Amino acid sequence: MSVGVPDDGVMSASTRARAVLENIASRKSVRSYLDRAVPAEMVESLLRAAMAAPSAKNRQPWSFIVVDDRSLLDTLASRLRYAKMLAHAPLAIVVCAETETVLADGTSVRNGFWEQDASAATENLLLAAEALGLGAVWTAASDEERSAAVRQTLGIPDGVMPLCVVSIGFPSGSEKPKDKWNPAKIHINKW
Amino acid sequence: MSVGVPDDGVMSASTRARAVLENIASRKSVRSYLDRAVPAEMVESLLRAAMAAPSAKNRQPWSFIVVDDRSLLDTLASRLRYAKMLAHAPLAIVVCAETETVLADGTSVRNGFWEQDASAATENLLLAAEALGLGAVWTAASDEERSAAVRQTLGIPDGVMPLCVVSIGFPSGSEKPKDKWNPAKIHINKW
Repeated sequence: MSVGVPDDGVMSASTRARAVLENIASRKSVRSYLDRAVPAEMVESLLRAAMAAPSAKNRQPWSFIVVDDRSLLDTLASRLRYAKMLAHAPLAIVVCAETETVLADGTSVRNGFWEQDASAATENLLLAAEALGLGAVWTAASDEERSAAVRQTLGIPDGVMPLCVVSIGFPSGSEKPKDKWNPAKIHINKW
Repeated sequence: MSVGVPDDGVMSASTRARAVLENIASRKSVRSYLDRAVPAEMVESLLRAAMAAPSAKNRQPWSFIVVDDRSLLDTLASRLRYAKMLAHAPLAIVVCAETETVLADGTSVRNGFWEQDASAATENLLLAAEALGLGAVWTAASDEERSAAVRQTLGIPDGVMPLCVVSIGFPSGSEKPKDKWNPAKIHINKW
């Protein structure tokens, strides 16, 4: 299976499990980046990971806008209150979803779970970024004010909603993951 | 960092990247399971992975109900149209989220992004399951009818929403991942 990194031999199940679990635990929000472009093959790996997410009824309602144009990144930074880091990021990927899908028979169905589908895709993308040595942060864009700004800046058509703008680059700092383990959040059998 | 699997030595960055990307590509919905309980340490690894997800303003609004009681699993199977596999699953984890959080100063704020936060946690959980050799499937529970059934069956309080019921076990079949790579879903700079 091509995932865009070199295949350097056989890996044991426990090595793979450890790699995956450590990567999930290591993922953190990275908001400052080196002045270095993200190679095209890494962008493809991020998008392959995102599209491997599950979706309700396998409708795959997502689309992705890869933004590396400096003036568009600056415009997004200026219009999105929580995405100022885009002014110094080499790359953003905007995760979008269709709120309705036209089926093979021509009928149109509402994707009631588009937000969940696109969120799973975004999490895959963030985990792939961590694995590739990139730093990224999920900034929300689905509320009314921000989605209007993103929609207008990038020409997103009606019927497609931006979920978030993921800012991406090579980390310039040394952000650490938060320890969020909290057994009080676990209930057994009944709440 | 303890992630619940043995640490078998130093791993190269490319080995880790390959493991993570292959695991993302290998994840699939698994609906049939061996008659074998999921060990407690694996359940903990799943929950650790889920709680490592990002969340809006780091509010971590999620909670998890671990269901291994046979009669509760059977009740959920009977009440949820798309979760019939629970009747033959040894385990379910119900991912929930608070729709409001009380802050340290006593004020209450709405978690407008609870669905996205809980979806990221769910995707982490599914990826951890794949890495551990488990099979799992995300079944939606956030719509009105299903959330009422889950809420009543498990005693979930007001102010907490079930997002989904993840059915989990050791795979009895050999489900394969779908290839969902679709370059038509990618736009560059503008839609």
